[in-house]
Amino acid sequence: MPVLKYYYDLLSQPSRAIYIFLKLANIPFQSCPVALRTGEHQTEDFKSSMNRFQKVPFIHHGDFKLAESVAIVRYLAREYRDLVPDKWYPAESKAQARVDEYLAWQHANTRIPCATYFFYKYIIPAMTKSPPDETELGKLESNLVTCLDQLEDLWLSPASKYIAGDSISVADIFAACELEQTRLASYDVTKNRPILKAWLERVREECNPAYSEAHAVLNKLVAKKSQSKL
Amino acid sequence: MPVLKYYYDLLSQPSRAIYIFLKLANIPFQSCPVALRTGEHQTEDFKSSMNRFQKVPFIHHGDFKLAESVAIVRYLAREYRDLVPDKWYPAESKAQARVDEYLAWQHANTRIPCATYFFYKYIIPAMTKSPPDETELGKLESNLVTCLDQLEDLWLSPASKYIAGDSISVADIFAACELEQTRLASYDVTKNRPILKAWLERVREECNPAYSEAHAVLNKLVAKKSQSKL
Repeated sequence: MPVLKYYYDLLSQPSRAIYIFLKLANIPFQSCPVALRTGEHQTEDFKSSMNRFQKVPFIHHGDFKLAESVAIVRYLAREYRDLVPDKWYPAESKAQARVDEYLAWQHANTRIPCATYFFYKYIIPAMTKSPPDETELGKLESNLVTCLDQLEDLWLSPASKYIAGDSISVADIFAACELEQTRLASYDVTKNRPILKAWLERVREECNPAYSEAHAVLNKLVAKKSQSKL
Repeated sequence: MPVLKYYYDLLSQPSRAIYIFLKLANIPFQSCPVALRTGEHQTEDFKSSMNRFQKVPFIHHGDFKLAESVAIVRYLAREYRDLVPDKWYPAESKAQARVDEYLAWQHANTRIPCATYFFYKYIIPAMTKSPPDETELGKLESNLVTCLDQLEDLWLSPASKYIAGDSISVADIFAACELEQTRLASYDVTKNRPILKAWLERVREECNPAYSEAHAVLNKLVAKKSQSKL
Protein backbone atom coordinates (compact mmCIF):
# COMPACT_ATOMS: atom_id res chain seq x y z
CA MET A 1 0.00 0.00 0.00
CA PRO A 2 1.46 3.40 -0.96
CA VAL A 3 1.79 6.26 1.54
CA LEU A 4 -1.44 8.17 2.11
CA LYS A 5 -0.88 11.91 2.30
CA TYR A 6 -3.82 13.83 3.74
CA TYR A 7 -4.03 17.55 2.95
CA TYR A 8 -6.41 19.54 5.12
CA ASP A 9 -7.16 22.64 7.14
CA LEU A 10 -8.97 21.96 10.41
CA LEU A 11 -10.99 25.14 9.93
CA SER A 12 -12.62 23.49 6.90
CA GLN A 13 -15.67 21.41 7.82
CA PRO A 14 -15.09 18.48 5.39
CA SER A 15 -11.39 18.51 6.31
CA ARG A 16 -12.38 17.82 9.92
CA ALA A 17 -14.82 15.09 8.85
CA ILE A 18 -12.16 13.14 6.94
CA TYR A 19 -9.62 13.76 9.72
CA ILE A 20 -12.00 12.25 12.30
CA PHE A 21 -12.77 9.31 9.99
CA LEU A 22 -9.05 8.59 9.42
CA LYS A 23 -8.38 8.63 13.17
CA LEU A 24 -11.43 6.53 14.10
CA ALA A 25 -10.53 3.91 11.49
CA ASN A 26 -6.85 3.90 12.47
CA ILE A 27 -5.86 4.50 8.85
CA PRO A 28 -2.17 5.43 8.78
CA PHE A 29 -1.59 8.76 7.01
CA GLN A 30 0.98 11.47 6.60
CA SER A 31 -0.46 14.69 7.97
CA CYS A 32 -0.16 17.58 5.49
CA PRO A 33 -1.82 20.72 6.84
CA VAL A 34 -2.64 23.44 4.32
CA ALA A 35 -3.11 26.93 5.78
CA LEU A 36 -5.96 28.39 3.73
CA ARG A 37 -5.59 31.75 5.49
CA THR A 38 -2.14 32.27 3.93
CA GLY A 39 -3.51 31.58 0.44
CA GLU A 40 -0.95 28.87 -0.33
CA HIS A 41 -3.63 26.97 -2.29
CA GLN A 42 -4.18 29.86 -4.67
CA THR A 43 -0.98 29.53 -6.73
CA GLU A 44 -0.70 27.98 -10.20
CA ASP A 45 1.92 25.61 -8.84
CA PHE A 46 -0.53 24.33 -6.21
CA LYS A 47 -3.17 23.89 -8.91
CA SER A 48 -0.89 21.86 -11.18
CA SER A 49 1.01 19.80 -8.63
CA MET A 50 -1.26 19.51 -5.57
CA ASN A 51 -4.98 19.82 -6.30
CA ARG A 52 -6.53 21.26 -9.45
CA PHE A 53 -9.60 22.42 -7.50
CA GLN A 54 -7.40 24.53 -5.17
CA LYS A 55 -9.43 23.52 -2.15
CA VAL A 56 -9.14 21.19 0.83
CA PRO A 57 -9.42 18.38 1.75
CA PHE A 58 -7.65 16.17 -0.78
CA ILE A 59 -5.40 13.13 -0.75
CA HIS A 60 -2.37 11.83 -2.59
CA HIS A 61 -2.30 8.06 -2.40
CA GLY A 62 0.93 7.18 -4.11
CA ASP A 63 0.53 8.98 -7.44
CA PHE A 64 -3.27 8.98 -7.28
CA LYS A 65 -4.73 12.38 -6.46
CA LEU A 66 -8.30 12.70 -5.26
CA ALA A 67 -10.44 15.62 -4.09
CA GLU A 68 -14.04 15.98 -2.85
CA SER A 69 -14.58 14.73 0.68
CA VAL A 70 -17.43 12.36 -0.21
CA ALA A 71 -15.38 10.68 -2.95
CA ILE A 72 -12.41 10.49 -0.57
CA VAL A 73 -14.29 8.82 2.28
CA ARG A 74 -15.74 6.22 -0.09
CA TYR A 75 -12.33 5.57 -1.64
CA LEU A 76 -10.72 5.15 1.78
CA ALA A 77 -13.49 2.79 2.94
CA ARG A 78 -12.68 0.58 -0.09
CA GLU A 79 -8.90 0.81 0.02
CA TYR A 80 -8.69 0.23 3.79
CA ARG A 81 -11.72 -2.03 4.18
CA ASP A 82 -9.80 -4.32 6.54
CA LEU A 83 -9.28 -1.42 8.92
CA VAL A 84 -12.52 0.56 8.66
CA PRO A 85 -15.30 -0.71 10.98
CA ASP A 86 -18.35 -1.44 8.82
CA LYS A 87 -20.63 0.95 10.70
CA TRP A 88 -18.87 4.01 9.30
CA TYR A 89 -19.64 3.10 5.69
CA PRO A 90 -21.73 -0.11 5.58
CA ALA A 91 -21.03 -2.75 2.96
CA GLU A 92 -24.67 -3.89 2.93
CA SER A 93 -26.33 -2.31 -0.10
CA LYS A 94 -29.40 -0.68 1.47
CA ALA A 95 -27.55 0.59 4.53
CA GLN A 96 -24.85 2.03 2.27
CA ALA A 97 -27.51 3.65 0.08
CA ARG A 98 -28.99 5.37 3.13
CA VAL A 99 -25.56 6.85 4.01
CA ASP A 100 -25.05 7.84 0.35
CA GLU A 101 -28.48 9.48 0.32
CA TYR A 102 -27.38 11.84 3.09
CA LEU A 103 -23.92 12.40 1.60
CA ALA A 104 -25.61 13.50 -1.64
CA TRP A 105 -28.35 15.52 0.08
CA GLN A 106 -25.96 17.45 2.33
CA HIS A 107 -24.12 19.30 -0.44
CA ALA A 108 -26.99 21.68 -1.15
CA ASN A 109 -28.98 21.26 2.06
CA THR A 110 -26.47 21.26 4.95
CA ARG A 111 -23.13 22.39 3.61
CA ILE A 112 -24.28 25.45 1.64
CA PRO A 113 -26.67 26.87 4.29
CA CYS A 114 -24.14 26.37 7.14
CA ALA A 115 -21.09 27.53 5.19
CA THR A 116 -22.70 30.60 3.61
CA TYR A 117 -24.10 31.74 6.98
CA PHE A 118 -20.69 31.28 8.60
CA PHE A 119 -18.91 33.03 5.74
CA TYR A 120 -21.27 36.00 5.69
CA LYS A 121 -21.51 36.49 9.44
CA TYR A 122 -17.92 35.67 10.47
CA ILE A 123 -15.42 35.72 7.59
CA ILE A 124 -16.60 38.79 5.64
CA PRO A 125 -16.91 41.07 8.71
CA ALA A 126 -13.48 39.86 9.90
CA MET A 127 -12.01 40.78 6.52
CA THR A 128 -13.86 44.06 5.92
CA LYS A 129 -14.13 45.20 9.56
CA SER A 130 -17.76 46.07 8.78
CA PRO A 131 -20.90 44.42 10.13
CA PRO A 132 -22.89 42.23 7.72
CA ASP A 133 -25.99 43.53 5.95
CA GLU A 134 -28.90 42.59 8.22
CA THR A 135 -31.37 41.82 5.42
CA GLU A 136 -28.99 39.46 3.67
CA LEU A 137 -27.99 37.88 6.98
CA GLY A 138 -31.67 37.34 7.77
CA LYS A 139 -32.13 35.39 4.52
CA LEU A 140 -29.09 33.24 5.22
CA GLU A 141 -30.26 32.59 8.78
CA SER A 142 -33.63 31.52 7.41
CA ASN A 143 -31.84 29.02 5.12
CA LEU A 144 -29.90 27.73 8.12
CA VAL A 145 -33.12 27.30 10.12
CA THR A 146 -34.62 25.31 7.20
CA CYS A 147 -31.53 23.10 7.21
CA LEU A 148 -31.87 22.40 10.94
CA ASP A 149 -35.62 21.80 10.63
CA GLN A 150 -34.98 19.29 7.85
CA LEU A 151 -32.23 17.51 9.78
CA GLU A 152 -34.71 16.97 12.61
CA ASP A 153 -37.77 16.32 10.47
CA LEU A 154 -36.36 14.26 7.57
CA TRP A 155 -33.34 12.54 9.08
CA LEU A 156 -33.49 12.28 12.87
CA SER A 157 -37.24 11.95 13.49
CA PRO A 158 -39.26 10.23 14.61
CA ALA A 159 -37.16 7.20 15.51
CA SER A 160 -33.71 7.56 13.99
CA LYS A 161 -30.93 7.76 16.51
CA TYR A 162 -28.48 8.72 13.76
CA ILE A 163 -28.68 10.33 10.32
CA ALA A 164 -28.79 7.06 8.40
CA GLY A 165 -30.66 4.95 10.94
CA ASP A 166 -29.82 3.14 14.15
CA SER A 167 -26.06 3.12 13.71
CA ILE A 168 -23.59 5.99 13.57
CA SER A 169 -21.91 6.46 10.18
CA VAL A 170 -19.81 8.94 8.25
CA ALA A 171 -23.08 10.78 7.51
CA ASP A 172 -23.18 11.86 11.17
CA ILE A 173 -19.55 13.00 11.11
CA PHE A 174 -20.14 15.09 7.97
CA ALA A 175 -23.32 16.65 9.38
CA ALA A 176 -21.84 17.42 12.80
CA CYS A 177 -18.72 19.08 11.36
CA GLU A 178 -20.90 21.45 9.30
CA LEU A 179 -23.05 22.38 12.30
CA GLU A 180 -20.05 22.96 14.60
CA GLN A 181 -18.75 25.66 12.25
CA THR A 182 -21.73 27.92 13.02
CA ARG A 183 -20.60 28.29 16.66
CA LEU A 184 -17.89 30.62 15.39
CA ALA A 185 -20.67 32.77 13.94
CA SER A 186 -22.28 32.79 17.43
CA TYR A 187 -25.16 30.57 16.33
CA ASP A 188 -26.33 27.79 18.63
CA VAL A 189 -27.83 25.04 16.47
CA THR A 190 -29.02 23.13 19.55
CA LYS A 191 -31.14 25.96 21.01
CA ASN A 192 -34.77 24.79 21.41
CA ARG A 193 -33.87 21.68 19.44
CA PRO A 194 -33.71 18.74 21.88
CA ILE A 195 -33.55 16.11 19.11
CA LEU A 196 -30.63 17.79 17.38
CA LYS A 197 -28.91 18.49 20.69
CA ALA A 198 -29.13 14.87 21.87
CA TRP A 199 -27.90 13.62 18.49
CA LEU A 200 -24.94 16.05 18.42
CA GLU A 201 -23.92 14.99 21.93
CA ARG A 202 -24.06 11.32 20.91
CA VAL A 203 -21.90 11.97 17.86
CA ARG A 204 -19.33 13.99 19.81
CA GLU A 205 -19.11 11.30 22.46
CA GLU A 206 -18.82 8.37 20.06
CA CYS A 207 -16.20 10.11 17.94
CA ASN A 208 -13.96 11.24 20.77
CA PRO A 209 -11.09 11.80 21.28
CA ALA A 210 -10.70 12.32 17.51
CA TYR A 211 -13.67 14.69 17.42
CA SER A 212 -12.25 17.05 20.06
CA GLU A 213 -8.81 16.89 18.47
CA ALA A 214 -10.24 17.89 15.07
CA HIS A 215 -12.23 20.73 16.64
CA ALA A 216 -9.46 22.07 18.90
CA VAL A 217 -8.61 25.03 16.64
CA LEU A 218 -12.28 25.90 16.15
CA ASN A 219 -12.94 25.64 19.90
CA LYS A 220 -9.99 27.92 20.62
CA LEU A 221 -11.30 30.56 18.21
CA VAL A 222 -14.81 30.30 19.69
CA ALA A 223 -13.38 30.77 23.22
CA LYS A 224 -11.30 33.75 22.07
CA LYS A 225 -14.35 35.33 20.45
CA SER A 226 -16.43 34.83 23.63
CA GLN A 227 -13.73 36.44 25.77
CA SER A 228 -13.44 39.45 23.46
CA LYS A 229 -17.15 40.08 24.05
CA LEU A 230 -16.83 40.13 27.85
CA MET B 1 -35.52 -9.24 -7.14
CA PRO B 2 -38.47 -6.98 -6.17
CA VAL B 3 -40.13 -4.66 -8.68
CA LEU B 4 -38.25 -1.41 -9.25
CA LYS B 5 -40.56 1.59 -9.46
CA TYR B 6 -38.92 4.68 -10.89
CA TYR B 7 -40.56 8.03 -10.11
CA TYR B 8 -39.44 10.92 -12.29
CA ASP B 9 -40.31 13.97 -14.32
CA LEU B 10 -38.37 14.28 -17.58
CA LEU B 11 -38.18 18.04 -17.12
CA SER B 12 -35.96 17.40 -14.08
CA GLN B 13 -32.28 17.07 -15.00
CA PRO B 14 -31.34 14.25 -12.57
CA SER B 15 -34.60 12.45 -13.48
CA ARG B 16 -33.39 12.33 -17.08
CA ALA B 17 -29.93 11.15 -16.01
CA ILE B 18 -31.32 8.14 -14.10
CA TYR B 19 -33.82 7.43 -16.87
CA ILE B 20 -31.01 7.27 -19.45
CA PHE B 21 -28.91 5.09 -17.14
CA LEU B 22 -31.80 2.65 -16.57
CA LYS B 23 -32.41 2.36 -20.32
CA LEU B 24 -28.72 1.99 -21.25
CA ALA B 25 -28.22 -0.72 -18.63
CA ASN B 26 -31.43 -2.53 -19.61
CA ILE B 27 -32.60 -2.49 -16.00
CA PRO B 28 -36.28 -3.45 -15.91
CA PHE B 29 -38.39 -0.84 -14.17
CA GLN B 30 -41.95 0.29 -13.75
CA SER B 31 -42.29 3.78 -15.13
CA CYS B 32 -43.96 6.17 -12.66
CA PRO B 33 -44.05 9.73 -14.03
CA VAL B 34 -44.64 12.51 -11.50
CA ALA B 35 -45.90 15.78 -12.97
CA LEU B 36 -44.14 18.43 -10.92
CA ARG B 37 -46.09 21.20 -12.68
CA THR B 38 -49.36 19.96 -11.14
CA GLY B 39 -47.86 20.04 -7.64
CA GLU B 40 -48.77 16.42 -6.86
CA HIS B 41 -45.50 16.08 -4.90
CA GLN B 42 -46.43 18.88 -2.52
CA THR B 43 -49.06 17.03 -0.46
CA GLU B 44 -48.56 15.55 3.01
CA ASP B 45 -49.68 12.19 1.66
CA PHE B 46 -46.92 12.28 -0.97
CA LYS B 47 -44.41 13.17 1.73
CA SER B 48 -45.40 10.31 4.00
CA SER B 49 -46.05 7.56 1.46
CA MET B 50 -43.94 8.41 -1.60
CA ASN B 51 -40.84 10.51 -0.86
CA ARG B 52 -40.20 12.51 2.29
CA PHE B 53 -38.07 15.02 0.33
CA GLN B 54 -41.02 15.78 -2.01
CA LYS B 55 -38.74 15.90 -5.03
CA VAL B 56 -37.89 13.69 -8.01
CA PRO B 57 -36.25 11.39 -8.91
CA PHE B 58 -36.73 8.61 -6.38
CA ILE B 59 -37.23 4.86 -6.40
CA HIS B 60 -39.22 2.25 -4.54
CA HIS B 61 -37.44 -1.08 -4.74
CA GLY B 62 -39.85 -3.43 -3.03
CA ASP B 63 -40.36 -1.64 0.29
CA PHE B 64 -37.04 0.20 0.14
CA LYS B 65 -37.43 3.89 -0.69
CA LEU B 66 -34.47 5.91 -1.90
CA ALA B 67 -34.04 9.49 -3.08
CA GLU B 68 -31.07 11.56 -4.30
CA SER B 69 -29.97 10.73 -7.85
CA VAL B 70 -26.33 10.05 -6.95
CA ALA B 71 -27.31 7.59 -4.21
CA ILE B 72 -29.81 5.97 -6.59
CA VAL B 73 -27.34 5.42 -9.43
CA ARG B 74 -24.82 3.87 -7.05
CA TYR B 75 -27.47 1.63 -5.50
CA LEU B 76 -28.69 0.46 -8.92
CA ALA B 77 -25.12 -0.23 -10.07
CA ARG B 78 -24.75 -2.54 -7.04
CA GLU B 79 -28.16 -4.19 -7.16
CA TYR B 80 -28.06 -4.80 -10.92
CA ARG B 81 -24.31 -5.32 -11.31
CA ASP B 82 -24.85 -8.26 -13.66
CA LEU B 83 -26.74 -5.99 -16.05
CA VAL B 84 -24.86 -2.67 -15.79
CA PRO B 85 -21.81 -2.43 -18.11
CA ASP B 86 -18.79 -1.59 -15.95
CA LYS B 87 -17.96 1.60 -17.85
CA TRP B 88 -20.99 3.43 -16.44
CA TYR B 89 -19.87 3.02 -12.83
CA PRO B 90 -16.50 1.23 -12.71
CA ALA B 91 -15.82 -1.41 -10.08
CA GLU B 92 -12.08 -0.63 -10.06
CA SER B 93 -11.41 1.55 -7.03
CA LYS B 94 -9.51 4.48 -8.61
CA ALA B 95 -11.75 4.68 -11.68
CA GLN B 96 -14.81 4.62 -9.41
CA ALA B 97 -13.28 7.33 -7.23
CA ARG B 98 -12.83 9.56 -10.28
CA VAL B 99 -16.54 9.18 -11.16
CA ASP B 100 -17.47 9.80 -7.51
CA GLU B 101 -15.27 12.91 -7.50
CA TYR B 102 -17.38 14.42 -10.26
CA LEU B 103 -20.69 13.24 -8.75
CA ALA B 104 -19.74 15.03 -5.52
CA TRP B 105 -18.34 18.13 -7.25
CA GLN B 106 -21.35 18.62 -9.51
CA HIS B 107 -23.86 19.37 -6.74
CA ALA B 108 -22.52 22.84 -6.04
CA ASN B 109 -20.57 23.43 -9.24
CA THR B 110 -22.76 22.22 -12.12
CA ARG B 111 -26.23 21.58 -10.78
CA ILE B 112 -26.72 24.81 -8.82
CA PRO B 113 -25.32 27.20 -11.49
CA CYS B 114 -27.29 25.54 -14.33
CA ALA B 115 -30.52 25.07 -12.39
CA THR B 116 -30.62 28.54 -10.82
CA TYR B 117 -29.94 30.21 -14.18
CA PHE B 118 -32.69 28.13 -15.81
CA PHE B 119 -35.11 28.82 -12.95
CA TYR B 120 -34.49 32.55 -12.91
CA LYS B 121 -34.51 33.08 -16.67
CA TYR B 122 -37.25 30.62 -17.69
CA ILE B 123 -39.46 29.45 -14.81
CA ILE B 124 -39.93 32.71 -12.87
CA PRO B 125 -40.76 34.85 -15.96
CA ALA B 126 -43.17 32.12 -17.13
CA MET B 127 -44.91 32.21 -13.75
CA THR B 128 -44.89 35.97 -13.17
CA LYS B 129 -45.21 37.09 -16.81
CA SER B 130 -42.46 39.61 -16.04
CA PRO B 131 -38.90 39.70 -17.39
CA PRO B 132 -36.12 38.77 -14.96
CA ASP B 133 -34.05 41.42 -13.21
CA GLU B 134 -31.05 42.01 -15.47
CA THR B 135 -28.51 42.54 -12.66
CA GLU B 136 -29.45 39.33 -10.91
CA LEU B 137 -29.55 37.45 -14.20
CA GLY B 138 -26.07 38.77 -15.00
CA LYS B 139 -24.73 37.32 -11.74
CA LEU B 140 -26.32 33.95 -12.44
CA GLU B 141 -24.98 33.94 -16.00
CA SER B 142 -21.52 34.65 -14.62
CA ASN B 143 -21.86 31.60 -12.33
CA LEU B 144 -22.93 29.52 -15.32
CA VAL B 145 -19.90 30.71 -17.32
CA THR B 146 -17.63 29.71 -14.40
CA CYS B 147 -19.25 26.27 -14.39
CA LEU B 148 -18.61 25.82 -18.13
CA ASP B 149 -15.04 27.13 -17.82
CA GLN B 150 -14.38 24.63 -15.05
CA LEU B 151 -15.91 21.74 -16.95
CA GLU B 152 -13.48 22.47 -19.78
CA ASP B 153 -10.50 23.40 -17.64
CA LEU B 154 -10.72 20.92 -14.75
CA TRP B 155 -12.52 17.93 -16.24
CA LEU B 156 -12.25 17.77 -20.03
CA SER B 157 -8.82 19.31 -20.65
CA PRO B 158 -6.20 18.77 -21.78
CA ALA B 159 -6.55 15.10 -22.63
CA SER B 160 -9.76 13.75 -21.12
CA LYS B 161 -12.27 12.56 -23.66
CA TYR B 162 -14.88 12.20 -20.91
CA ILE B 163 -15.50 13.73 -17.48
CA ALA B 164 -13.82 10.93 -15.56
CA GLY B 165 -11.14 9.98 -18.10
CA ASP B 166 -11.00 7.98 -21.29
CA SER B 167 -14.28 6.14 -20.86
CA ILE B 168 -17.83 7.45 -20.72
CA SER B 169 -19.54 7.05 -17.33
CA VAL B 170 -22.58 8.20 -15.40
CA ALA B 171 -20.62 11.40 -14.67
CA ASP B 172 -21.06 12.38 -18.33
CA ILE B 173 -24.78 11.61 -18.27
CA PHE B 174 -25.30 13.73 -15.14
CA ALA B 175 -23.27 16.64 -16.55
CA ALA B 176 -24.93 16.57 -19.98
CA CYS B 177 -28.47 16.51 -18.54
CA GLU B 178 -27.72 19.64 -16.50
CA LEU B 179 -26.30 21.51 -19.49
CA GLU B 180 -29.19 20.53 -21.79
CA GLN B 181 -31.63 22.27 -19.45
CA THR B 182 -30.14 25.70 -20.22
CA ARG B 183 -31.30 25.46 -23.86
CA LEU B 184 -34.80 26.17 -22.60
CA ALA B 185 -33.43 29.40 -21.14
CA SER B 186 -32.03 30.20 -24.63
CA TYR B 187 -28.43 29.67 -23.54
CA ASP B 188 -26.05 27.80 -25.83
CA VAL B 189 -23.41 26.14 -23.65
CA THR B 190 -21.42 25.05 -26.74
CA LYS B 191 -20.96 28.54 -28.24
CA ASN B 192 -17.22 29.28 -28.61
CA ARG B 193 -16.49 26.14 -26.62
CA PRO B 194 -15.20 23.50 -29.05
CA ILE B 195 -14.06 21.14 -26.29
CA LEU B 196 -17.43 21.18 -24.56
CA LYS B 197 -19.27 20.95 -27.87
CA ALA B 198 -17.32 17.88 -29.04
CA TRP B 199 -17.79 16.21 -25.66
CA LEU B 200 -21.55 16.88 -25.59
CA GLU B 201 -21.92 15.45 -29.11
CA ARG B 202 -20.00 12.32 -28.07
CA VAL B 203 -22.22 11.84 -25.01
CA ARG B 204 -25.45 12.35 -26.98
CA GLU B 205 -24.31 9.87 -29.62
CA GLU B 206 -23.14 7.20 -27.21
CA CYS B 207 -26.28 7.43 -25.09
CA ASN B 208 -28.77 7.32 -27.94
CA PRO B 209 -31.58 6.41 -28.44
CA ALA B 210 -32.18 6.68 -24.66
CA TYR B 211 -30.73 10.20 -24.59
CA SER B 212 -33.12 11.57 -27.23
CA GLU B 213 -36.04 9.77 -25.64
CA ALA B 214 -35.29 11.34 -22.25
CA HIS B 215 -34.93 14.78 -23.82
CA ALA B 216 -38.01 14.59 -26.09
CA VAL B 217 -40.19 16.77 -23.83
CA LEU B 218 -37.41 19.31 -23.34
CA ASN B 219 -36.70 19.39 -27.09
CA LYS B 220 -40.39 19.95 -27.82
CA LEU B 221 -40.53 22.90 -25.42
CA VAL B 222 -37.33 24.38 -26.90
CA ALA B 223 -38.81 24.08 -30.42
CA LYS B 224 -42.08 25.67 -29.30
CA LYS B 225 -40.18 28.54 -27.69
CA SER B 226 -38.12 29.10 -30.86
CA GLN B 227 -41.26 29.18 -33.00
CA SER B 228 -42.98 31.67 -30.74
CA LYS B 229 -40.05 34.05 -31.32
CA LEU B 230 -40.34 33.91 -35.15
